[in-house]
Amino acid sequence: MTASTLREIVLKEAPSGKLTAANFELRTAPMPAPEAGEALVRVLYISIDAANRAWMQGRTYREQVLPGTKMAGGALAEVITSRDDALRPGDLVEADIGWCDYAVLPAKLLQKRTRRGPVTHLLSILGITGKTAYFGMLHIGEPQSGETVVVSAAAGAVGSVAGQLAKSRGARVIGITGSAEKCTWLTQELGFDATINYRDENVMHALKREAPDGVDVFFDNVGGDIFESVLFRMNTHGRIVCCGAVSQYDTDTPAHGPRGVPGLIVTKRLKVQGFIVMDFFDRSLQAEAELAGFAAQGRIKVAEDIVEGLENAPHALVGLLGGENVGKRLVHVADPQS
Amino acid sequence: MTASTLREIVLKEAPSGKLTAANFELRTAPMPAPEAGEALVRVLYISIDAANRAWMQGRTYREQVLPGTKMAGGALAEVITSRDDALRPGDLVEADIGWCDYAVLPAKLLQKRTRRGPVTHLLSILGITGKTAYFGMLHIGEPQSGETVVVSAAAGAVGSVAGQLAKSRGARVIGITGSAEKCTWLTQELGFDATINYRDENVMHALKREAPDGVDVFFDNVGGDIFESVLFRMNTHGRIVCCGAVSQYDTDTPAHGPRGVPGLIVTKRLKVQGFIVMDFFDRSLQAEAELAGFAAQGRIKVAEDIVEGLENAPHALVGLLGGENVGKRLVHVADPQS
Repeated sequence: MTASTLREIVLKEAPSGKLTAANFELRTAPMPAPEAGEALVRVLYISIDAANRAWMQGRTYREQVLPGTKMAGGALAEVITSRDDALRPGDLVEADIGWCDYAVLPAKLLQKRTRRGPVTHLLSILGITGKTAYFGMLHIGEPQSGETVVVSAAAGAVGSVAGQLAKSRGARVIGITGSAEKCTWLTQELGFDATINYRDENVMHALKREAPDGVDVFFDNVGGDIFESVLFRMNTHGRIVCCGAVSQYDTDTPAHGPRGVPGLIVTKRLKVQGFIVMDFFDRSLQAEAELAGFAAQGRIKVAEDIVEGLENAPHALVGLLGGENVGKRLVHVADPQS
Repeated sequence: MTASTLREIVLKEAPSGKLTAANFELRTAPMPAPEAGEALVRVLYISIDAANRAWMQGRTYREQVLPGTKMAGGALAEVITSRDDALRPGDLVEADIGWCDYAVLPAKLLQKRTRRGPVTHLLSILGITGKTAYFGMLHIGEPQSGETVVVSAAAGAVGSVAGQLAKSRGARVIGITGSAEKCTWLTQELGFDATINYRDENVMHALKREAPDGVDVFFDNVGGDIFESVLFRMNTHGRIVCCGAVSQYDTDTPAHGPRGVPGLIVTKRLKVQGFIVMDFFDRSLQAEAELAGFAAQGRIKVAEDIVEGLENAPHALVGLLGGENVGKRLVHVADPQS
């Protein structure tokens, strides 16, 4: 039985400086009914991503999230009622549904998902973050056996998978992260070869020790000073995979760019490439099948960090921007009924 | 008959800040005789390039040029006497011979060149700068018909060819340069669609006017503020060809990097790639043949800026760094005898 109201979280005001939970508010609204071509869905899990913060800064690869509107975010949901032939009650679907427990969307925006293993995997290893790691590392970074790979935000949802994928190609993998616990987890649980705790030591100095022969592939999620430090250690013909710039999202005053751009890009003949997972849409199912196989074989360990309750989504995002998550952060809203 | 002494120009001291002619001195030395496997060559033309300045800053893709040694530089020469079977008197050869009128080099370092049209073409359109423009624009930038291309240092040896090559692919080409005369030359003589004089107006504003639909390919020779301005106007999936960073060479204090790196590289999904002409060594003869054809047909106008006399090489380089040349700057040392 469906409730008569839904709950949703609204971006009350644009953050000035760092985002806080007080920038959001929870409101209720009458339960909508789907019209022709639409479906009513119940949200199961919401994906919490650093990019959520970037969406508040302006137009990126999607429209800006404006104050007064429901906070945007990818989510996995279950169809409750459908007025479109393509969807039936009980279908698992994914879309940018936003932070809510129920929603009506056009059926054509709801991507059907097929369960492979735990349902949460559809938003972690088989979701946007897993596939981002897959395409970024394997199609842009292209690590070769024996090469040295550095991953920033290595304990995050993308970094933890990206590093393991580089290991699967025979590379030596160094993770940069922000706590001693995460460093231990990366080496002992995920098999990283070395780690650098950027809060404890100078990254440029640490790289001289951990990557004495330089860096061939840098998979970067953070930008800023860490980008600059690794740039100076890149080898000739190195590849920098620009996946994110989380160090610059939660602020009104983005820093100067890294020194050495574009000078070192010329002299070291680097390829520095940005991408989003949609750029590889045509290869998405193939990636999903390969990642599901890796997970089932235990060749990739899937790390999930699940926060309970829609009302805690703001804290979940603020905490993620502060680096408190290990692996893919999800907000659990409801369990599947079917 | 060969003289009994040679002349060469030495980097007397490393420049502090801007390079001046006083950083060099001319000296004479006894004429050397080639040993087995070597050849004595007479220099005809010396190539003057912005990269010459970068070589004084440290190790790049070649060893640093150190004070007290002969200034390095590419040159076209004629073999006078040879003690290697691969070379005969009268052969045209190219190498990093340095700033001098005669030199002895190992034959294996001397690349034989075949004359196609004026001998100077071997160092301009058929030389490193012409081929740099060719590979950078056509193999990395890959402009498509109807796309918008921006070239910085557009009146220089590389930029003037790069822009004409983009025109040959049907792109709309905008040149950024530093004087009204160069702007007029680019549009009236070389067929550029529009120009921006960066000394006269804000490049970001001018780009809004000249490239209202954004920029698809940016062929950059200068780095610094111009790089940042164009970066902000790039279209999704745009390509930035990092060919040089001349704005950062003639200084002890390179600027901060451009804002928007790596953030805009991610959100716009840009490819930013550095290269040097040696990366395409295996396709060099093919490029040369195509460029020679373009020049012979008049589809590319070859602009050369020739300074007379070895003793004027320091002034030629200082002037080039200040932007006084139009097209490829060469120093004329001697005429071919054969």
